[in-house]
Amino acid sequence: MTTDSPVKYELIHVCKQSGARRGILHTPHGSFETPVFMPVGTQATVKAMTPEEVSSLGAEIILANTYHLWMRPGHDLIKEAGGLHKFMNWPKAILTDSGGFQVFSLSDARRIDEEGVKFNSHIDGSLHKLTPELAIDIQTALGADIIMQLDECADWQKDRSYIKGSVERTLRWLERCSKQHENTAQQALFGIVQGGVYEDLRRLSAKETISFNLPGYAIGGLSVGEPADLMYKMLEVVTPILPEDKPRYLMGVGSPDYLIEGVIRGIDMFDCVLPTRLGRNGTVMTSEGRLTVRNATYARDFTPLDPNCSCYACRNYTRAYIRHLIKANEILGLRLTTWHNLHFLINLMSQVREAISRNELLDYRDHFFSQAGWAKE
Amino acid sequence: MTTDSPVKYELIHVCKQSGARRGILHTPHGSFETPVFMPVGTQATVKAMTPEEVSSLGAEIILANTYHLWMRPGHDLIKEAGGLHKFMNWPKAILTDSGGFQVFSLSDARRIDEEGVKFNSHIDGSLHKLTPELAIDIQTALGADIIMQLDECADWQKDRSYIKGSVERTLRWLERCSKQHENTAQQALFGIVQGGVYEDLRRLSAKETISFNLPGYAIGGLSVGEPADLMYKMLEVVTPILPEDKPRYLMGVGSPDYLIEGVIRGIDMFDCVLPTRLGRNGTVMTSEGRLTVRNATYARDFTPLDPNCSCYACRNYTRAYIRHLIKANEILGLRLTTWHNLHFLINLMSQVREAISRNELLDYRDHFFSQAGWAKE
Repeated sequence: MTTDSPVKYELIHVCKQSGARRGILHTPHGSFETPVFMPVGTQATVKAMTPEEVSSLGAEIILANTYHLWMRPGHDLIKEAGGLHKFMNWPKAILTDSGGFQVFSLSDARRIDEEGVKFNSHIDGSLHKLTPELAIDIQTALGADIIMQLDECADWQKDRSYIKGSVERTLRWLERCSKQHENTAQQALFGIVQGGVYEDLRRLSAKETISFNLPGYAIGGLSVGEPADLMYKMLEVVTPILPEDKPRYLMGVGSPDYLIEGVIRGIDMFDCVLPTRLGRNGTVMTSEGRLTVRNATYARDFTPLDPNCSCYACRNYTRAYIRHLIKANEILGLRLTTWHNLHFLINLMSQVREAISRNELLDYRDHFFSQAGWAKE
Repeated sequence: MTTDSPVKYELIHVCKQSGARRGILHTPHGSFETPVFMPVGTQATVKAMTPEEVSSLGAEIILANTYHLWMRPGHDLIKEAGGLHKFMNWPKAILTDSGGFQVFSLSDARRIDEEGVKFNSHIDGSLHKLTPELAIDIQTALGADIIMQLDECADWQKDRSYIKGSVERTLRWLERCSKQHENTAQQALFGIVQGGVYEDLRRLSAKETISFNLPGYAIGGLSVGEPADLMYKMLEVVTPILPEDKPRYLMGVGSPDYLIEGVIRGIDMFDCVLPTRLGRNGTVMTSEGRLTVRNATYARDFTPLDPNCSCYACRNYTRAYIRHLIKANEILGLRLTTWHNLHFLINLMSQVREAISRNELLDYRDHFFSQAGWAKE
């Protein structure tokens, strides 16, 4: 199965200082370097950006959300359009999640059983049921390069016995997803390691998941409110179990500290709405920390968002202008903050890859957090 | 004064079939061909677009609204930023209106007297007074290439005696604007012909206004709800009075029929929020008429907005995708419809200019309105 996989990981270098991996991920829609940050295009668009703009920032893969596209406009419509790549005019790689996380986080009245999850749509309240088979069918219709198994995203504060049951159900769902997945020549199915904050359950989940010999593995159920140290500990438990020749994807992580610490613990792929969501709220990530440009203090600040940044927004506009746009509800304001934040994280990952090659990732981490504004985070 | 004017009109050709003019307008921020459509950037941004995008569509001049910029972020702030061109990163020509039209249209509790207009801000209700002198002072601070006199935009349905008083007041205000205007080397002041739908008052207004020997003249108080025939009649009365060596600007006009008919009656410049506002409402102008892409009928329509269009939106996206974006409240949807509509009008004016050079503008008009969908308008 591995040799036939449409997605292959090529290990390039292991940082002698940190053990972090630099590699290349080969997909049917292009190859790109890892560790990589994947911008999120929930509804078949990275919010406020064109595909060309996302690409110009150096992004080679984006994530789209199965739940949202299933609800609107419908996966059948996207299949009819020729698949998600064509529908949204993004010729590079795409990863879709299973829809499970959104069902768990967006739906109030969800009911989980062995068969799947029943929930009410966040758009019109209509009743739906997501099963492992349906999660695969929808993702097959969308046609992403990397697709995810349906898993149960249990609350990390649940007790051990609940989490254990949830890990076991997630494994049974992986079995069903794997059986349902037929388009193996063009789409790579990733399994998801769960287990909350319990080391032994994480170990169990990782070992059982890799027994499926899949083209890649994700770690889910982290960065959901638990203390950072617990997350780092779980990564330290899980990644040594995962095979070296497969990519490792830490789901839903996008703050600079989590990205760098994740890479140090062997992670290759990340996604998060943080840069786009922060941007739309008028906050940007800069070399000097977070900056809420909508604040009055920047009303007459005629310097760029980040004096050390070379992105389109920083080369052409001032904080005063961007603040004006945001205060006046102008779309260009959100475009510029989104642009800058995506550039910031994609550029951060590029620097991380270079630091890996120089065997200096721990030094890079220390340097990054020595910058005013980031130390606190 | 004319010879020193920073804005000069160069007549290139008069259409033998229609009498329409083709020319070049020279400004401190570039020269461009007329007749021209000016996209509106009310709050120092053409809504949803970057300056580079607006420029890539062929726009050489945009309009910004004095009233809005005065209220937010304030003309003093923009002056401190180095002027409007620099503040908004638009290196080409800018025209600012006087603020009068917005005061008349946005403010409920306005009171007009000889001194000026008192009104409450639409943002916070605060009381302000706009005078001819202040309209010039604000526009001087903004630094646009073309600035407008404060005029009274009287309701076209008012009786003759009211409109006559309004024309006379507008002339007295022009006198005061002209006196207040000192930056004559870099900013050209245009007078505005008023007179409602009364031919003799339009004639009176035109004759008195041109006695100021200004670098350009606008026609105001039209396209405000009066029948199209009445508007055309007023243009036919006014433009023969205006000097041939000065540009003529018909304010607030942007529908294809008004543009073409205006050019035929000797107009050189137009502005309107129509393309950007329509776009944000999910409606586009196409070679086959208006199309409301947000309608359900386009849900599975995988053709471009306009099959005969070569703009970025039409080259890369389908009606189905753009409808999905609009239904899902995605910013990219508004960007694409805005882009297309601006391209449509700017391209229309390019075709109009070519038709003038070929002495075939009446034929072009007939051809345009023979297209399905436009005949009705």
